[in-house]
Amino acid sequence: MKPIIFALPGNEYLSADIIAGTKGEKGNFEIRQFPDQETYVRLLCDVNKRDVIIVCTLHQPDAKLLPLFFLCNLLRDQNVNSICLVAPYLAYMRQDKQFNSGEAITSEYFAKLLSSIADRLITIDPHLHRRVSMKEIYSIPTEVLHAAMLISEWIKTNIPYALLIGPDSESEQWVSEVAKNAGAPFIVLQKIRHGDRDVEVSVPGIEKYKNHIPVLVDDIISTARTMIETVTHLKKAGAKDPVCIGVHAVFAGNSYEELKNSGVSKVITCNTIVHQSNAIDISKLICSVIQK
Amino acid sequence: MKPIIFALPGNEYLSADIIAGTKGEKGNFEIRQFPDQETYVRLLCDVNKRDVIIVCTLHQPDAKLLPLFFLCNLLRDQNVNSICLVAPYLAYMRQDKQFNSGEAITSEYFAKLLSSIADRLITIDPHLHRRVSMKEIYSIPTEVLHAAMLISEWIKTNIPYALLIGPDSESEQWVSEVAKNAGAPFIVLQKIRHGDRDVEVSVPGIEKYKNHIPVLVDDIISTARTMIETVTHLKKAGAKDPVCIGVHAVFAGNSYEELKNSGVSKVITCNTIVHQSNAIDISKLICSVIQK
Repeated sequence: MKPIIFALPGNEYLSADIIAGTKGEKGNFEIRQFPDQETYVRLLCDVNKRDVIIVCTLHQPDAKLLPLFFLCNLLRDQNVNSICLVAPYLAYMRQDKQFNSGEAITSEYFAKLLSSIADRLITIDPHLHRRVSMKEIYSIPTEVLHAAMLISEWIKTNIPYALLIGPDSESEQWVSEVAKNAGAPFIVLQKIRHGDRDVEVSVPGIEKYKNHIPVLVDDIISTARTMIETVTHLKKAGAKDPVCIGVHAVFAGNSYEELKNSGVSKVITCNTIVHQSNAIDISKLICSVIQK
Repeated sequence: MKPIIFALPGNEYLSADIIAGTKGEKGNFEIRQFPDQETYVRLLCDVNKRDVIIVCTLHQPDAKLLPLFFLCNLLRDQNVNSICLVAPYLAYMRQDKQFNSGEAITSEYFAKLLSSIADRLITIDPHLHRRVSMKEIYSIPTEVLHAAMLISEWIKTNIPYALLIGPDSESEQWVSEVAKNAGAPFIVLQKIRHGDRDVEVSVPGIEKYKNHIPVLVDDIISTARTMIETVTHLKKAGAKDPVCIGVHAVFAGNSYEELKNSGVSKVITCNTIVHQSNAIDISKLICSVIQK
């Protein structure tokens, strides 16, 4: 039987695409806040023995967790067969070790809580920095999808003379792959440290690509500090106005406006988090893994 | 050994009173939000084998739960002996049955989650409406404290000619007790139903108390609808400007301003939730039960 797909508030667009792409059934339910800001949840469809998918991207996660917890508990009590959580953006991936004594390793605690309410997790480009696999933190099966190929396709279609830019050596592997699939060259910025506070940044070989459009790609754009810095170095080196692409449009505070005003030509993101910069649709990635 | 007492953000005043009243130790820790609104928690004291008290009142509960969950998990990992949660206001007490099919009984799910992170719960006047005891929903030991005596004392000290008012027959037991301990008379409003939308409300015997100050008491002031209605009936019946007393200053939306502007002389609450109307200190109730 086809899955029933529930969209938590704010996930309606992506959810509609997933319903269409998987020929799934829309899960009817009511979720709202009482005047005192407690959450009310009511199922309006039969879920007995059904496989259920909940679409709930998890940026600004704290206020989202309890409604999600309630919905999962309610579904269990109504005897669902399974719960798959689709969280295109997964929060709490950064604090994955104690940088200082006494710190909460929130990535593990968050994983424990999600693993206790869902049977399976689907996510896109989680920020696996020091961890090799989601298995190290999540006890439920997790499918990790990657937006890189969709980003390459977008670049190929929209930017005729693209020059991919990696902000540092760490980004080289990821940037070189996106560049290869987009059929574009790439450059990685080099930092030469002269002292604690004296770092020289160069853009090696930029003079060869005077007519190319620099394209900056990152997984999460949060404060946008790295991107804005990279844009500054590129402009100093005489490059054209760059295009900035992020998988996840987290955009803390005013960072979107700051990035837009930093001398870029465009800011583009995938629709893992609803944002006005969304231009690359990741719903087909999710549909393909659901249908498997 | 004395307990270590941690105050979640917003609970610093009450927590300081509890530390003073129990001669407890202040729990040093850091809790803040990253720019992307994820929560960071770091313990800055040794809690090994210690009994820990967390003060975290739970109005507007959704965003509070995950930080609390993280702190409790961190304390466990640091080998505390026990965790006692002091939640002077306890959320999710109203949806304690399915009024309509398919509804989430959030009071049970919330209780399950709190019971999984703490060993013991101390709270004040939880909204036990259809349930007789907290044991029906909480699997951990729960100490329920009552503010009634402190409210009676406040009335006795501050309002020489008080007339306690119950908004309906349901409130009679509670109002009569507060009145008795305050040494004051009481009246309960009567509703006579003439039709579906035609309800007559009378204030029986009000004419005997022309020189008294009506005092309205309720456990939670949320939208303040009942209080404002009761004030209207009292004013129509020629009573003086009433004093409104609530245990929990939930005050949804603009309800505090609306109540203040409804013709009352004063709005008074207990400090279970920090609010400008706080005038009755409940910290000694909590201290007495901690010291037991």
